[in-house]
Amino acid sequence: MSSDAFLLWVDTPVKVRYAETDAQRVVYHGAYIPWLEVGRTEYCERAGYPYPRMEAEGVRIVVVDLRARYRRAARYGDTVTVRTRFADLKSRGCRFAYEVRLPDGSLAVEAETDHIFTDVTGRPISIPRAVREAFVSFAGR
Amino acid sequence: MSSDAFLLWVDTPVKVRYAETDAQRVVYHGAYIPWLEVGRTEYCERAGYPYPRMEAEGVRIVVVDLRARYRRAARYGDTVTVRTRFADLKSRGCRFAYEVRLPDGSLAVEAETDHIFTDVTGRPISIPRAVREAFVSFAGR
Amino acid sequence: MSSDAFLLWVDTPVKVRYAETDAQRVVYHGAYIPWLEVGRTEYCERAGYPYPRMEAEGVRIVVVDLRARYRRAARYGDTVTVRTRFADLKSRGCRFAYEVRLPDGSLAVEAETDHIFTDVTGRPISIPRAVREAFVSFAGR
Amino acid sequence: MSSDAFLLWVDTPVKVRYAETDAQRVVYHGAYIPWLEVGRTEYCERAGYPYPRMEAEGVRIVVVDLRARYRRAARYGDTVTVRTRFADLKSRGCRFAYEVRLPDGSLAVEAETDHIFTDVTGRPISIPRAVREAFVSFAGR
Repeated sequence: MSSDAFLLWVDTPVKVRYAETDAQRVVYHGAYIPWLEVGRTEYCERAGYPYPRMEAEGVRIVVVDLRARYRRAARYGDTVTVRTRFADLKSRGCRFAYEVRLPDGSLAVEAETDHIFTDVTGRPISIPRAVREAFVSFAGR
Repeated sequence: MSSDAFLLWVDTPVKVRYAETDAQRVVYHGAYIPWLEVGRTEYCERAGYPYPRMEAEGVRIVVVDLRARYRRAARYGDTVTVRTRFADLKSRGCRFAYEVRLPDGSLAVEAETDHIFTDVTGRPISIPRAVREAFVSFAGR
Repeated sequence: MSSDAFLLWVDTPVKVRYAETDAQRVVYHGAYIPWLEVGRTEYCERAGYPYPRMEAEGVRIVVVDLRARYRRAARYGDTVTVRTRFADLKSRGCRFAYEVRLPDGSLAVEAETDHIFTDVTGRPISIPRAVREAFVSFAGR
Repeated sequence: MSSDAFLLWVDTPVKVRYAETDAQRVVYHGAYIPWLEVGRTEYCERAGYPYPRMEAEGVRIVVVDLRARYRRAARYGDTVTVRTRFADLKSRGCRFAYEVRLPDGSLAVEAETDHIFTDVTGRPISIPRAVREAFVSFAGR
């Protein structure tokens, strides 16, 4: 299944915290990573399968790869938009793609994360059918 | 038992990370809190009862109160010293006291944390005898 | 001026991030501290004096004291409410008080922070008249 | 200049903080990112050009790209080794490569970061000659 198969973006506003800035007076590059997780969380909720529900059902989603390209820096006081897209789905893993956009719409960060599904012991598993169906149904094609 | 009963300090060097600074170009006030935990971790190890061992034995130490007074700011590049003292011990809780000192010896932050002991379900328990003995034996009087 | 002089609370929702949890499977005690800053930021905005504007005018608000009492733990998936109140105002400093409330309304954390005003070099200054008036006018009595 | 030109690794021990774990009871994937910065900081110091000195001379190193592959999870109590290598040097940027190794020597995370040099206003600049010479002299070939 191609990375282009899922085109739906979910937008989540995130307001920059002072804690997230660094001595360069902009957001620390590592502080964008939890924002991607905020985007994924919102995406799963909107898809009808909140991550706490997956955890309650014994499914873990584990990050195995992260790629981020930094274009412009966000600053304290900005409310950025984290745009999240379900970018790929395989039998044992999935990919999310993200854009972090500044208040003026310009691109701050582009990112992708690759994930595998595991059970509570950390053993890789196939994506549960109900999770797959929720995502495919939501993200459409 | 008085707070003055335990006088032994354990010193732990902590090198300031860029991630811990903020747009005021000094360490973010919240970033000192994990350093206190670094000091406690070192203290428990030195006392012969590493926290991972407590967890393996089903004991949790939970923070119930935190007080910090900020005097001077640490900066990226500083190696500060986190000084940790076991300050009080009761049947169901304990207190640690801390000083964070800058490279020139001046005081950056003074802090105390109060803790209770719980089992894995979060239910408060009395401090296990072996833990008590390790701490009293180490901290002396 | 008494701490009871200002009674207005400003409520800010904060959704717990996975990044903010720890291996006890609840929010790390240090992760509540940035939430207090989120509450202060919102308070200042609502009072008509956003903190970025203060910084642009050369005024810094520096945390000099922090006190937090932890009652119940928040968890990933919770949207907590950070309630912030301007609790005291002196010529050279101010105090904010906070409650972090769980989705069921119960109290997770109570906290206070004390602040001084400084110029860009870190030298303490009196609270600028315009800032004082904005806060007193907003918080009322 | 090939990425293989610089073969010298600098090793930095990092002890896992409780703050860095998450509710999966292992280190949060985003918490490895500041460790890479710890490795870079150590590398620059060992190369004779500490980053605070660069900042004092008006040079900023900005992260423009980050890639991380997660293999095994570190846990609270582990002292991991962050291995850092200067991987590439161009006129206006450089690359660092990293391995985070668990106490048993196995690979937890592999990562690379790409950087540009800027002046204090954020404008891209060529790498200063003294910085270039320090790195090339240290990393050798």
